[in-house]
Amino acid sequence: MADLTTTRQRADLASRYRHVRSLTEVLAAPLSPEDQTVQSMPDVSPTKWHRAHTSWFFETFLLQPSLDRYRIFHPAYAYLFNSYYEGVGARYPRPRRGVVSRPGVHEVGQYRSHVDEGMGELIDGALAPATSELIELGLHHEQQHQELLLMDIKHVLSCNPLEPAYATLTFDAPRPARATAWIEHPGGLADIGHRGPGFGFDNEFPRHTVHLAPFAVAERPVTCGEWMAFIADDGYHRPDLWLSDGWTTAQAEGWESPHYWSRVVDDWWVFTLGGPQLVDPAEPVCHVSYYEADAFARWAGGRLPTEAEWETVADDGEPGGNFLDLSVLHPRPADGPTFFGDVWQWTSSAYSPYPGFHPAAGAVGEYNGKFMVNQYVLRGGSCVTPADHFRSSYRNFFPPSARWPFAGLRLARDG
Amino acid sequence: MADLTTTRQRADLASRYRHVRSLTEVLAAPLSPEDQTVQSMPDVSPTKWHRAHTSWFFETFLLQPSLDRYRIFHPAYAYLFNSYYEGVGARYPRPRRGVVSRPGVHEVGQYRSHVDEGMGELIDGALAPATSELIELGLHHEQQHQELLLMDIKHVLSCNPLEPAYATLTFDAPRPARATAWIEHPGGLADIGHRGPGFGFDNEFPRHTVHLAPFAVAERPVTCGEWMAFIADDGYHRPDLWLSDGWTTAQAEGWESPHYWSRVVDDWWVFTLGGPQLVDPAEPVCHVSYYEADAFARWAGGRLPTEAEWETVADDGEPGGNFLDLSVLHPRPADGPTFFGDVWQWTSSAYSPYPGFHPAAGAVGEYNGKFMVNQYVLRGGSCVTPADHFRSSYRNFFPPSARWPFAGLRLARDG
Amino acid sequence: MADLTTTRQRADLASRYRHVRSLTEVLAAPLSPEDQTVQSMPDVSPTKWHRAHTSWFFETFLLQPSLDRYRIFHPAYAYLFNSYYEGVGARYPRPRRGVVSRPGVHEVGQYRSHVDEGMGELIDGALAPATSELIELGLHHEQQHQELLLMDIKHVLSCNPLEPAYATLTFDAPRPARATAWIEHPGGLADIGHRGPGFGFDNEFPRHTVHLAPFAVAERPVTCGEWMAFIADDGYHRPDLWLSDGWTTAQAEGWESPHYWSRVVDDWWVFTLGGPQLVDPAEPVCHVSYYEADAFARWAGGRLPTEAEWETVADDGEPGGNFLDLSVLHPRPADGPTFFGDVWQWTSSAYSPYPGFHPAAGAVGEYNGKFMVNQYVLRGGSCVTPADHFRSSYRNFFPPSARWPFAGLRLARDG
Amino acid sequence: MADLTTTRQRADLASRYRHVRSLTEVLAAPLSPEDQTVQSMPDVSPTKWHRAHTSWFFETFLLQPSLDRYRIFHPAYAYLFNSYYEGVGARYPRPRRGVVSRPGVHEVGQYRSHVDEGMGELIDGALAPATSELIELGLHHEQQHQELLLMDIKHVLSCNPLEPAYATLTFDAPRPARATAWIEHPGGLADIGHRGPGFGFDNEFPRHTVHLAPFAVAERPVTCGEWMAFIADDGYHRPDLWLSDGWTTAQAEGWESPHYWSRVVDDWWVFTLGGPQLVDPAEPVCHVSYYEADAFARWAGGRLPTEAEWETVADDGEPGGNFLDLSVLHPRPADGPTFFGDVWQWTSSAYSPYPGFHPAAGAVGEYNGKFMVNQYVLRGGSCVTPADHFRSSYRNFFPPSARWPFAGLRLARDG
Repeated sequence: MADLTTTRQRADLASRYRHVRSLTEVLAAPLSPEDQTVQSMPDVSPTKWHRAHTSWFFETFLLQPSLDRYRIFHPAYAYLFNSYYEGVGARYPRPRRGVVSRPGVHEVGQYRSHVDEGMGELIDGALAPATSELIELGLHHEQQHQELLLMDIKHVLSCNPLEPAYATLTFDAPRPARATAWIEHPGGLADIGHRGPGFGFDNEFPRHTVHLAPFAVAERPVTCGEWMAFIADDGYHRPDLWLSDGWTTAQAEGWESPHYWSRVVDDWWVFTLGGPQLVDPAEPVCHVSYYEADAFARWAGGRLPTEAEWETVADDGEPGGNFLDLSVLHPRPADGPTFFGDVWQWTSSAYSPYPGFHPAAGAVGEYNGKFMVNQYVLRGGSCVTPADHFRSSYRNFFPPSARWPFAGLRLARDG
Repeated sequence: MADLTTTRQRADLASRYRHVRSLTEVLAAPLSPEDQTVQSMPDVSPTKWHRAHTSWFFETFLLQPSLDRYRIFHPAYAYLFNSYYEGVGARYPRPRRGVVSRPGVHEVGQYRSHVDEGMGELIDGALAPATSELIELGLHHEQQHQELLLMDIKHVLSCNPLEPAYATLTFDAPRPARATAWIEHPGGLADIGHRGPGFGFDNEFPRHTVHLAPFAVAERPVTCGEWMAFIADDGYHRPDLWLSDGWTTAQAEGWESPHYWSRVVDDWWVFTLGGPQLVDPAEPVCHVSYYEADAFARWAGGRLPTEAEWETVADDGEPGGNFLDLSVLHPRPADGPTFFGDVWQWTSSAYSPYPGFHPAAGAVGEYNGKFMVNQYVLRGGSCVTPADHFRSSYRNFFPPSARWPFAGLRLARDG
Repeated sequence: MADLTTTRQRADLASRYRHVRSLTEVLAAPLSPEDQTVQSMPDVSPTKWHRAHTSWFFETFLLQPSLDRYRIFHPAYAYLFNSYYEGVGARYPRPRRGVVSRPGVHEVGQYRSHVDEGMGELIDGALAPATSELIELGLHHEQQHQELLLMDIKHVLSCNPLEPAYATLTFDAPRPARATAWIEHPGGLADIGHRGPGFGFDNEFPRHTVHLAPFAVAERPVTCGEWMAFIADDGYHRPDLWLSDGWTTAQAEGWESPHYWSRVVDDWWVFTLGGPQLVDPAEPVCHVSYYEADAFARWAGGRLPTEAEWETVADDGEPGGNFLDLSVLHPRPADGPTFFGDVWQWTSSAYSPYPGFHPAAGAVGEYNGKFMVNQYVLRGGSCVTPADHFRSSYRNFFPPSARWPFAGLRLARDG
Repeated sequence: MADLTTTRQRADLASRYRHVRSLTEVLAAPLSPEDQTVQSMPDVSPTKWHRAHTSWFFETFLLQPSLDRYRIFHPAYAYLFNSYYEGVGARYPRPRRGVVSRPGVHEVGQYRSHVDEGMGELIDGALAPATSELIELGLHHEQQHQELLLMDIKHVLSCNPLEPAYATLTFDAPRPARATAWIEHPGGLADIGHRGPGFGFDNEFPRHTVHLAPFAVAERPVTCGEWMAFIADDGYHRPDLWLSDGWTTAQAEGWESPHYWSRVVDDWWVFTLGGPQLVDPAEPVCHVSYYEADAFARWAGGRLPTEAEWETVADDGEPGGNFLDLSVLHPRPADGPTFFGDVWQWTSSAYSPYPGFHPAAGAVGEYNGKFMVNQYVLRGGSCVTPADHFRSSYRNFFPPSARWPFAGLRLARDG
């Protein structure tokens, strides 16, 4: 195997590997063994599962095929910690992850160390380009799980009547939200998708041309203050504002506000990773489903942007807000335009392949393509997305009923 | 109210009204009161419900607002026969339609006559353009229900171990399918959507420009013979071919072939509106879900076309196959290219608004827009679609798991 | 085969056969083909299914084994109309009975005639005692289904917003209920179970001795007036009155009154086979579950009687109320003591085998024994029970959540 | 308040209190924080919940009402750790107990110490008889939860593909089972129920007279060897052997053997608290539902005993097997007659009140009476029942589908 990496490239990769891997442990550190074990709903995974699964990815796709002297840590882990890769064998049922008490957090830590040791050796050796690309994929995979870990533990803690905080956060005094300005776009041909080189998931390729009608988008996401006005105007009880499936879901689930909001006498409170807080009208609304975002947009006389509209405008702008930072962990008010960070923004685009899309070869080809149905694209990154994991062509996706992502919305309208 | 219609226009409308309304009764005629009462699954409606609901549409949106002397046939029918229009009041739960034995088929016939009489008077009088447009919408609405009536009764009869036929149909001897030819398209800008004038649903507007990458589409739908090869190659048991949701659904439902197919020793049989028949390899495959269509396309090394690709090519071609004809009622083999008729064809396009889409005003605005989530577009019409209801810009839509529509697929590939 | 029957016995049997069979048709006569097709919940069977199934019983257990020249009416009916006899082959799933439109009511009528003709021949010939006993069982089986037919069609019609009546019934003006008197019993040894000879189901045997503690039972069933007092005293909202399973069920189902009751402004109405009526405080409460009956008894400071207590007292008394009579069809007020008729009375006895119980031999042995779990015994017969089908040792049984039987309760207390 | 206790009585109570409370901690000791957090199905509670709930019982029913200076440990615990007592307020939903990670095992330990301290003070002071009776109830309540804790953790660990052992257990070599002998009883009048004085739950009272027909019971429970013969004779696939509800459940759940059994090639293995073991034909079969026990008994030509039959015979005998002992924890073979220990034995008696039953006063009256529906009585105690918690009049109860109790059966037959 030709070694195409330089010493500097190996050192950079090793450094980035250590950086990403250690952040996962930093995120898990405030959590007790009990916290790390719980699965509060089928979509949520236990913290210790995230820690083990991201290690399994390196073990399965890198160490086993590429490091001759690698010794499997435990033969049953392939079954326990495979998430959804049909190509590499059977897997433990997802909704039952919270039932598996062992391996415990300590043993998972040992598993991580064992994998890290192997990966150190692998990176130290001759690396084919495909191998280092796969390592890069593994690191971005782990960064995705860092966001999931925080989304998931927030849900777990929110189910506890004691309302425990994940971290000590500080918040500014609430203040009123100001009206948004709009960015007009004349439409016409535009190119979207990953520009290269740099890392991108297969679903961001190929870059391609789309035709847009004239449109406008708001220069910042919708705020909690605007959402309170929607609630006050009976937005959750007017079927004319909702998609049919959205209305059915909202009625069945009894939605009356964003997830994590609760009314105490006349105030709205929100459960955050720092515990319960008064809702700040100026901060971007978060933890709303696609259905709610769509209903809000209709109420506001607008609509959600398509992902092509979003990317076309966001690519021209620069300003970004908060990405993953342990002292933030909650969407924060912004004074000017913001495109990136704080909250993912639902688009009206169903998650579909770009023209000419081809999934990556092998089992890692199951990463994205097989989920391209019944989901909607979100853009922009959030306050729990690692900053160096994000790029403007990033396509996140969730089912339209999902509320546990850090997701809000940005308004658009026809031009 | 200005009367903008001529005598000739009124006569044409009256004639078309009588033609459409009487076809519904012709379609129901072979069915006993018992047949017309049954709802075999929540998606299916009883025949007598279709007959009543289409009359309710005229009563609610035309006769009550526009015919002064109109007398409501029965005050409870507004509740019983509203399908999903939130804007006009409460409605009886859809999954319980098969529980309502009264009004019976005879009384529903009287309801239809009563409405027809009123509509005769209305059409005879001064008609504002908006009114005659609404009548036209009501007739297309009824034609949609003619297709649903046949889809639904086919499902009802198929649940009966006696395997009763709806009609006596004749079939040619099975013959092998030939390979398809492909139509290449260079891509670039194209316009899709309703060209006007003529009738179209709101979801076909506005006509607009899209940008296409080079592509090709097959000149005819996939055949049963090709589908048998997919089955023989274990297509229903290879997760790598399937979308994740599709695989989960296929496993949960135990799918092993298209709906209505059954294996008897070494032969495949299919339940048709003419009763059980040997599967003809040359006829278009039908009653497959989006999930199956997508998996088949991946297996075949292709993909489904987008609706823009489909419309761009189909608009250039001319040939069509079978539309609703009481002696056909089943997709039939074709020797040359076919774009229209026989089977609806799944596209890879999620059902979304066209740029600049606005729903129609008032309660009829609930017709299309509120379903624009979690569904996929089908194109082309089928052997149970009335021919004069169809146009090439027609956008049919169903959830990706639906199998009771007369739906097949056409292959596409990147150019 | 020895013929042990006399001409008179054959004539009596033929007469009883005709009487029972024709009553079924009389009960179905007011119902349209649409009415006879509907299954409003899994526990309910369509009228035409009852008509066919009771015929299938004679065909399967009498005509096929015992009438040489008998020709099966239709080979698929054994599958369609078997209720639960595992011993005679597969059967169509019970919750899907309402999906089968064919055979229709007319063809079911022909099936009945065909079976009647065969049974006529059979009864006319030499009859072994086992055969005439089996005919008697078949007739009692059909009488059970006469009650079920009325229970079921009442449920079907009640689901229709038009609130149609099965029959024209007359009701006296409502009047207040008077307090009940009590019948004291000193306890000690008592014998219960069928005394013989006469017909009895296997579950009524053997007659056996029980030991009773001193107790008392009310001389008449609980009335609607008393039930209104329970409602007014918040009986449906006090968990301390309820069994744990009962409370869970009542909350999940939203029970606030007996089934078929509805409040209109300040009045309670009840849906009857004669359509909606004002509730008469003097009539026995009906369509309450075991859970409700048990909670009511606790609220009233008493308890439900055991079936041994019930039978011991009822056997000594004589008075009976209304059994199946087409002009009654609803529980009616009584002035004095009543033990039998009007409403079945829940007992606190789980449905269990009597000591020494043996099920009947062969497939008819599936009649009773295999249901002896998770059900409670009801005693006394109701206004939809044929009078000549009833005897004081009769053990009816339903799950504790069932509300569609004509079931009320009688109070008991420790002596 | 009159102090009716002597120093010796207080010392005895204090000693028993310490003994029972410390055993709970001994049982939890081998379990990690992760193990103690998991709830593997709605019927199962996490270990740390059992530890906290049993403390809540003392805090709620003893310390709060009776110890003036008692300080509540945490105000939210009343909500988190109430199991089902409607009389003392709302409670956290049972099926979500596994979602609550905090308080963790350490904090639960502090809660226990806090309660123990308070209870020490309470016992040291003047104790009204009602108070010391309530303490005794609290201790028996905790002993019940000791059994539940072991039942539950066995289920939790069994869901883990790693098949971890709770403890290191030793097993003798498997040996064949011998045929059972039978104990004949002539029937007649017998007294059952708690004889007094000593502790008993309210459901064991009052002692009362029953009348029995002649019968016989086996002198030991059914063995695994006998159960293998039932399996080999297709017992799980013959509907004629099963109650209707049992058959439906067995089919739906795919039962093919007792819970925790699995077939590896030709051998049956059983998951025990000591990990997987070969099934020993001589040991009592365990973890079968009432449905399976009933089907087995029918297959064996017998039936289950009533609880009156069971108690009448067991009271005369003496021999007992294994109760809770950390070196046993699994039913063990017996050479001679056994009535008590090793496995609970399903009886054919639905769980009902004895004649004259009155629940205890106050919230502790919810202990037993409100579960007297849809459950069957088990008798005899098991290898996870504390020996000093058991007495021959003890009535355990579970729904007929429950398989996670240590439950087997004893055969009976008519005399």
